[in-house]
Amino acid sequence: MHTPPWQSQQHSLQQTVEARLLEYTQSRWAHVPSRLAQSMAYSLLDGGKRMRPVLCLGFAQALGPLQPCAYDAAMAVEMVHCYSLIHDDLPAMDDDDLRRGRPTNHKQFGEAMAILAGDALLTEAFAALAGPLGAVFSAEEAGIRARLCQELAGAAGALGMVGGQVLDTAEGRPAELDYLLRLHKMKTGALIKAACRMGVVAAGGNAQALEAAETYGEAVGLAFQIADDLLDVVATPEAMGKPTGADAAAGRATFPAVLGFEKAQAMAAQQVETALSALSRVEPTPGLLAGLARFSVERKH
Amino acid sequence: MHTPPWQSQQHSLQQTVEARLLEYTQSRWAHVPSRLAQSMAYSLLDGGKRMRPVLCLGFAQALGPLQPCAYDAAMAVEMVHCYSLIHDDLPAMDDDDLRRGRPTNHKQFGEAMAILAGDALLTEAFAALAGPLGAVFSAEEAGIRARLCQELAGAAGALGMVGGQVLDTAEGRPAELDYLLRLHKMKTGALIKAACRMGVVAAGGNAQALEAAETYGEAVGLAFQIADDLLDVVATPEAMGKPTGADAAAGRATFPAVLGFEKAQAMAAQQVETALSALSRVEPTPGLLAGLARFSVERKH
Repeated sequence: MHTPPWQSQQHSLQQTVEARLLEYTQSRWAHVPSRLAQSMAYSLLDGGKRMRPVLCLGFAQALGPLQPCAYDAAMAVEMVHCYSLIHDDLPAMDDDDLRRGRPTNHKQFGEAMAILAGDALLTEAFAALAGPLGAVFSAEEAGIRARLCQELAGAAGALGMVGGQVLDTAEGRPAELDYLLRLHKMKTGALIKAACRMGVVAAGGNAQALEAAETYGEAVGLAFQIADDLLDVVATPEAMGKPTGADAAAGRATFPAVLGFEKAQAMAAQQVETALSALSRVEPTPGLLAGLARFSVERKH
Repeated sequence: MHTPPWQSQQHSLQQTVEARLLEYTQSRWAHVPSRLAQSMAYSLLDGGKRMRPVLCLGFAQALGPLQPCAYDAAMAVEMVHCYSLIHDDLPAMDDDDLRRGRPTNHKQFGEAMAILAGDALLTEAFAALAGPLGAVFSAEEAGIRARLCQELAGAAGALGMVGGQVLDTAEGRPAELDYLLRLHKMKTGALIKAACRMGVVAAGGNAQALEAAETYGEAVGLAFQIADDLLDVVATPEAMGKPTGADAAAGRATFPAVLGFEKAQAMAAQQVETALSALSRVEPTPGLLAGLARFSVERKH
């Protein structure tokens, strides 16, 4: 079987992320109360796709050799993603028992610990960006780290991911395309876009590179979400590691429900084209980032 | 009635904090989904004592004129404090219905919204420190803001406040002084200490000032917690705005329960002395900071 070069790169960055996360949890969490550290690590080291940190490192390495703050940015984005999954799964929220084929955090550690592990992971994301207490950076790196905090806080908070979750759980949520676009732009799009932008910021990229990351990230985030909705219609529970058909059963407004299956597919494909054309300045020869953009809609799980 | 000068200063800083928080919520949260913004503001603008931001600004102004990053640090510390109260009150945690005489956040807005409002306030704390997206700071200020993020993330996370909450809710929590000291050093002490240190960092204070803030913050934090335990024994529900005697009823290990009432009182008084003597380099003539140290144990609610 032939593996395309971009997939080898993706695999290599995934392994880098795994190794960095493992090392971070083992060194920085050595004195964390053990049950809390277990709960945090259970969700953080669970073999997810690492899409966000790979995008972050992908943009950073397209612009030059990877710097320490790029790795920290990649870890921080993944920590925020993991915390959001823990809290989204809680009984008061989506009340999910399974995540990637394993018990959700609160099923494994109890609800109180799941809330606290999420809180701690969110806080730890900013600790990773800011560096350990007493760390002194060059003026340039301090400026970069402050900007990385801006990006992450803006994308993860009330105007981004958390705000999107509120729209998603709102009663009487309208089944309209505009609402759906706003919701997903905030709930999932903001963090994916931030991951791309943070890669550029960490690499000291210019305004054009930042704009490319913005356009690419927004398009890929939307494509990814539409694909998620489509997969919930057509994929098997085995491939997804969780029950499927849940959206339709709950009568939830999704892209295929609002647009119809084929128009939703076309919209996702259009987003991939937008993402690919934004890449010309960052990745002139299609490589990892182009491959990831295509993968966002072609994946089977 | 005569108001001592330190109380006038405290009152003035409290009002400054209120005004800054109100302005922040109105300007920065204008586009936050309205129900989320209401839930966040409900807890953030609820007329608490603002002890942490006042300590932060108190240290900063003892070292020079207040800079924008000092105000941002003060707001950030209060946002973290408020988020922790929202999550601590949740049914899965302490399951409290009242906070400062009003329904707790989840009683008012529902459990899902309370979780999300807490998440958003925690994120917003780092947004306040890092500045709005695109803000560019001088090299000096960027360095200060990165250090402020270090301080806050270290104090609020798994090695600080969240870790302490885990110890506090652990089953079979031992009724021993060492455990109690570790628990409170993390759960309440870390954030109070960070508030003091962040004031020094924001003002560009030297290592001696930072050490004074460290000693003072740790001592005042502990004194404050012991006083809280003592008040739960002797204060009226009216004065506290919540039921009292709860610790004893739950058989909870507290400082008076472990040490006896009088020894706990003496320990609190000793902490105040430690705090006062640490102040000599920062506040040579006893003023606001000395007054706050004494107030931490002399308060009636």
